[in-house]
Amino acid sequence: MSELRKDPITGRWVIISVERAKRPTDFTVSVDWKEEKLCPFCPGHESEKNDKELFVITSFDKQNEWMVRVVEDRYPILDFHGEVERIGEGMYDKMDNIGAHEIIVESPFHDKTLATMSIEEIYNVFWTYKQRFLALKEDKRFRQVLIICNHGYGAGGQLKHPHSQLLATPIVPKSIMEEIEGTLEYYAYKERCIFCDIVREELRLKERLIIDNPSFIAIAPFASRVPFEICILPVEHVSSFENIQEEEAMDMARVVKETFMRMEKILGDCPYNLFLHSSPFNKYHVSEYHWHIEIMPRLTKLAGFEWGTGFYINPTPPEMAAEQLRGAF
Amino acid sequence: MSELRKDPITGRWVIISVERAKRPTDFTVSVDWKEEKLCPFCPGHESEKNDKELFVITSFDKQNEWMVRVVEDRYPILDFHGEVERIGEGMYDKMDNIGAHEIIVESPFHDKTLATMSIEEIYNVFWTYKQRFLALKEDKRFRQVLIICNHGYGAGGQLKHPHSQLLATPIVPKSIMEEIEGTLEYYAYKERCIFCDIVREELRLKERLIIDNPSFIAIAPFASRVPFEICILPVEHVSSFENIQEEEAMDMARVVKETFMRMEKILGDCPYNLFLHSSPFNKYHVSEYHWHIEIMPRLTKLAGFEWGTGFYINPTPPEMAAEQLRGAF
Repeated sequence: MSELRKDPITGRWVIISVERAKRPTDFTVSVDWKEEKLCPFCPGHESEKNDKELFVITSFDKQNEWMVRVVEDRYPILDFHGEVERIGEGMYDKMDNIGAHEIIVESPFHDKTLATMSIEEIYNVFWTYKQRFLALKEDKRFRQVLIICNHGYGAGGQLKHPHSQLLATPIVPKSIMEEIEGTLEYYAYKERCIFCDIVREELRLKERLIIDNPSFIAIAPFASRVPFEICILPVEHVSSFENIQEEEAMDMARVVKETFMRMEKILGDCPYNLFLHSSPFNKYHVSEYHWHIEIMPRLTKLAGFEWGTGFYINPTPPEMAAEQLRGAF
Repeated sequence: MSELRKDPITGRWVIISVERAKRPTDFTVSVDWKEEKLCPFCPGHESEKNDKELFVITSFDKQNEWMVRVVEDRYPILDFHGEVERIGEGMYDKMDNIGAHEIIVESPFHDKTLATMSIEEIYNVFWTYKQRFLALKEDKRFRQVLIICNHGYGAGGQLKHPHSQLLATPIVPKSIMEEIEGTLEYYAYKERCIFCDIVREELRLKERLIIDNPSFIAIAPFASRVPFEICILPVEHVSSFENIQEEEAMDMARVVKETFMRMEKILGDCPYNLFLHSSPFNKYHVSEYHWHIEIMPRLTKLAGFEWGTGFYINPTPPEMAAEQLRGAF
C-alpha cells in the first residue's frame, strides 16, 4: 500500500509509493553535459568579455591563482542597477526587476564535483557564499539571497565546470515564504522551531538519517518529493546561513562532501538541483526560521502532474533511500 | 527593462522579460510522441486487460459506438478501495493513499486534438467531466476532483490518443489550497471575488484578452509563468465546475476549441499541460472560489530555478502572447 505523507513545514502532500518502490538500480540518468569547446570558467579565460569579479579566494602557496571566484552573470535575470519601486497597474502589482545575479565558480578544475572536491575546497565555496551574503545584506534594496546549483543538463545546468548561482531579490520568493509561514504556524502552536523538532526526531529514529556530525545532519525528508531527496540542516537553531562560523563551516563541508560521495556511489554522477534556503534579511528577518540545504536528484521526469496539483509522486520511500545511502561505504 | 509581476491570486512573483522578448517563431518545440504500436484507447481494444468502464457517451446515430469513455487507470496512483484514516507517526502526518484515478478517453479517433475536435465533441468531454465530478462528490472520502491533461512527451504525456486524467483526493492539493487562501484574503479585504475582478479588468483593458463569449473569457494572465500561458474563466461567478449547465458548456466548448485552434496556428501542435481547478467538495466547499482552466504550453525548459525559488522567468510578455493569439486568424 502506498501512503500520502504531509510535509510538516509546507503542508505539501506527497504520494510515497511503497509497493512498486524503485531502488537505485532502477534509475539510469546521467548528467548528460552538452560540452562547450571553450569553458568560460576555466583559468585563463577570466578576462574574456570583461566579467566583473566580485570576490575571490586565492591559494596561499601559489600567488594569483584563484580557488573560488565570484563574477556577475553575463546574462543576468535581475538588473543590479536602479531603485526598487513598487507600482500598481490597475488591480495588479509589479516592480522593476532589480536584483543581483552572480556566478560562484567553485573550483579552477573543470571536472571536479562536490563528491571529488576536497573538504577544504568545499569549505572555501561555503565561505564564499557567506561573504556574498554579508555584502548583499548591506544593500537595503534586497530582502533575500538564494543559492542555486543546477548540476547536469536534466537539472537545467548549462555548463559542466562546477559553479553555483546566487540571486539577491527585492521580494521574498514563494519557496521561502511557504516555509516561513509553516514555521510560524508551528511556532505559534508549539513555541518550538519545527526544523529543530525534525532534527531531534530524525536523530532519535535514525531510519531517515544518512550522516551526522556535531554541527549538521543529512536526512531523507519524511515527505521527500523525489527519489533520494536530501536535506542538510544545522543541528543547533540558526535562522541565517551567513552567521556560520569557521568550525561549523568545516563540519558543513564534511557533511556535504560525504553526502555527495555517497550519492555518487549509489546513483552515479546524476543530475540534481541544490538550494540553500536562509532567512530573509534585515527587517524581513525571521528568527524562527532555520536555514538548510535541499538536494533534489532529478532521476524521474517531473510530469505535469506535480505541476498542476502541487503534490508529488515519489516511487522511492525515504527510509529506503537513507538505508542505501548509509550503506554506500 | 524587464519586470517583476505578482500573481494576484497566489502571490507568486514572475520575471517578465521585455527586452529579450521571445516571439512564437523563437520556439521550436514539438509534441514528440513516442508512438506505441497498439493504442490501448483506440476502439476495438476496449476489453483488453479488462478496463473497468465508469462512464460512456455513445453516439445517437450509430448504436454502441462510444464518443467519450471513462475507465479506471490501469496503474492508478491512488487506491480506490479502503477508508481514509489519518495517522500520526511521531511528529509527522500520513494517511493511506486513497483516491480515484480515472482516464477520460476524449475521442475514438487517435489523432484528434482539442484544435481539431468539433465543438460537439469537446462539449461531450466537458459534459463527461461534469458527470464524473457529480458521481465522485457522492463519495464522502473525497474532498477534491482535479482534471489534468498532459499533451506531448515534453509535458509528461505518454500516449497520443486524446485523453485526460481525473484524480479524486482525500486532501485539498496545494495548488488549489494556495488559490483558495489568496481568494479568501482578497475577499476579506475587498468583499469581492478576485477572479471576477480579473475578468472585469481584462474585459476592460483588452490587451491580455484572447477571446470571449457570453459565458467565458480566455486571457493571457498578468503574471503568466510560461510563454503563452492561458486561463479560461467563466464570466459569472461560479465556484464549482460541476454546476455548469448545457448552454454554458456549449460556450465553454466554443472557447476551448477556438483557443486551441489559435494556439496551434501560432505555436504548432506543442506540448502543454491543462488543469481544471474547481472548488473542493461538500464541507470543504469554498463559495468565494471561481473555477477555471489553466493551459501551460511547455515551450521552454523549466530549470531548477523555478523549482527552487518558486518564481518563474517568462521571456514572452502576456500582452505579446495575447496579441499574437488574437491575430491568429
